[in-house]
Amino acid sequence: MSKFTEAICYKSFGSVLNSLYLEPNCSVYHHSYKNGKDWVRIGFRATPINPSDINQIEGVYPVKPNTFPAVGGNEGVAQVLEIGQQVKDIKVGDFVIPRLSGFGTWRRETICDPACLFRVHKSIGLINAATVSVNLCSAYRMLHDYISLSQGSFYFTVRQDDVVIQNAANSGVGKAIIQICKHKKIKNINVIRKRETTEESNALMNHLKQLGSSMTVFEDDLINNVNKVQEQIMEHFKVLPILGLNAVGGENSTNIFRLLNKNGAMVTYGAMSKKPIKLPTGPFIFDNKKCFGFWMSQWYSDSQNNSKRSEMMNDICSMIEKRALSTLDYKLYSYKDYQRANPRLY
Amino acid sequence: MSKFTEAICYKSFGSVLNSLYLEPNCSVYHHSYKNGKDWVRIGFRATPINPSDINQIEGVYPVKPNTFPAVGGNEGVAQVLEIGQQVKDIKVGDFVIPRLSGFGTWRRETICDPACLFRVHKSIGLINAATVSVNLCSAYRMLHDYISLSQGSFYFTVRQDDVVIQNAANSGVGKAIIQICKHKKIKNINVIRKRETTEESNALMNHLKQLGSSMTVFEDDLINNVNKVQEQIMEHFKVLPILGLNAVGGENSTNIFRLLNKNGAMVTYGAMSKKPIKLPTGPFIFDNKKCFGFWMSQWYSDSQNNSKRSEMMNDICSMIEKRALSTLDYKLYSYKDYQRANPRLY
Repeated sequence: MSKFTEAICYKSFGSVLNSLYLEPNCSVYHHSYKNGKDWVRIGFRATPINPSDINQIEGVYPVKPNTFPAVGGNEGVAQVLEIGQQVKDIKVGDFVIPRLSGFGTWRRETICDPACLFRVHKSIGLINAATVSVNLCSAYRMLHDYISLSQGSFYFTVRQDDVVIQNAANSGVGKAIIQICKHKKIKNINVIRKRETTEESNALMNHLKQLGSSMTVFEDDLINNVNKVQEQIMEHFKVLPILGLNAVGGENSTNIFRLLNKNGAMVTYGAMSKKPIKLPTGPFIFDNKKCFGFWMSQWYSDSQNNSKRSEMMNDICSMIEKRALSTLDYKLYSYKDYQRANPRLY
Repeated sequence: MSKFTEAICYKSFGSVLNSLYLEPNCSVYHHSYKNGKDWVRIGFRATPINPSDINQIEGVYPVKPNTFPAVGGNEGVAQVLEIGQQVKDIKVGDFVIPRLSGFGTWRRETICDPACLFRVHKSIGLINAATVSVNLCSAYRMLHDYISLSQGSFYFTVRQDDVVIQNAANSGVGKAIIQICKHKKIKNINVIRKRETTEESNALMNHLKQLGSSMTVFEDDLINNVNKVQEQIMEHFKVLPILGLNAVGGENSTNIFRLLNKNGAMVTYGAMSKKPIKLPTGPFIFDNKKCFGFWMSQWYSDSQNNSKRSEMMNDICSMIEKRALSTLDYKLYSYKDYQRANPRLY
């Protein structure tokens, strides 16, 4: 087979402004495809831009392309256009997403080994399918893997006293966390930065409340008066949070760690403030608190998680079908508008 | 029964200088003993002074006495002097240690519920028995519970590439860690502070080497040139440490965290620098590193650990009997010399 397609590529690491270009004649062979193996031809229908996609082009992300020029993009949904004779479990017309990071999803078509793909329910729609594997799955795993959250239905007995706290609550992952918490009946405290006007702040708080937020806290209050925030939490929930999700770092994360209950865990998945995590020793030792890092790409690359992945995807698709969970804010751009699509380029 | 004994007590929280006194007529009933229950009369033979015993008297330690005046001391070995009719598993003459913190061990005698006591092998000798439950057991658990150390015989397959790094290596716990590592064939890197003279520093390094240290690193070098330390470690061991044990905090712990291999864990059990732990976010997220706190008292108070405790004690006693492990530096004082015995009092 010899076929060419449109793709957004980069020839070397660098700023997206200088490095990215639209390649009209990109070879459709995915680097993981080898002759003799079974094959699937897929056509991408929607692929998002994540901050990590940009970091990857800049060369500062641990996932790096095998060769240059490389096709950008790690996530996206494709439809199966054609399959080799031996291919089972995948049919023409199916929705598929890449199994691992580094696939290069910003292209119209590619041919690859079916083992590189993961089938998703068509019923969840193109946009959710395109964005399910990073933000929605990150939210799901962090709520699932570090603390046995007892209130939700994560295989545990329902109790009335589990609370989660997160910062960057207005991010894609943040909003997914709120929605999953609401669906699983987990109480959630959401730390956001104050907006420019009170009206804008109130509007954001209301938006998060509608998604399922039990309480919103401004970052300034968390940093300047953690004791008062603690009082408010105790008044509201009668118990401190058992799980903290941190994508910010700095003083914000220090105080999230402080606010955790005994035996609580803080999971870090981002560092928006670019400041390190500073933690007091006492809570580690005497309150048996724990700190973990989470990286969705790492989780996917661990083959031990394969069966958990299908289970998670079924659970997430079922939430999407029930309209309990969805990718919220997006704008659609065509490939030729790739420069407008990237918020760092205009 | 009505009986009185000599004890070192305190009437309220405060400095050891003002609060501690020698009580010649302390009632022998331990607060956990209740009438009607079975009883054991024990005579303490040796009880150590730990920094946490002092913090407890100052009121800044989470273990607090139920009533005042309180008897000081959390650890020590006693001999069984007399037993109630129903008492099984404990015989007159046995060596016993308190099962939990807060027992009040700085007294000649007490009567208590046999459930408060844990029997130890007589063969390990008075001094090791008196100090086994804090320092030696802390070292054992931290090496055991956070990483599946594969080189030693901790129920895992022997491999040639596991390395542990610790600071405060010259402390009681630190030296126990070195000895256990040597016995279990775990390579160990020991961070110490430079002494006043080169001779003293060399003497300390030699002392640790004799105990089983594979490599010694000065704190200054760790803080000022972590890259060079990393090169030395790679040259020496071909691999970075998988477990870091931290009793210091501050920059020292930041760099121990940095030096850990992928999937590594840092366990914090002390904060000698009184500085918080500052951790870069990248290693958390991309290297899947983890941070835990460890507190021996907490571990003992969790009844799930009861069976592990006997197993640990058998293993430790066997190491002591083989002369692979021991409490190293000590001075003996009589009760009447309690002021001289306390390093903060003279």
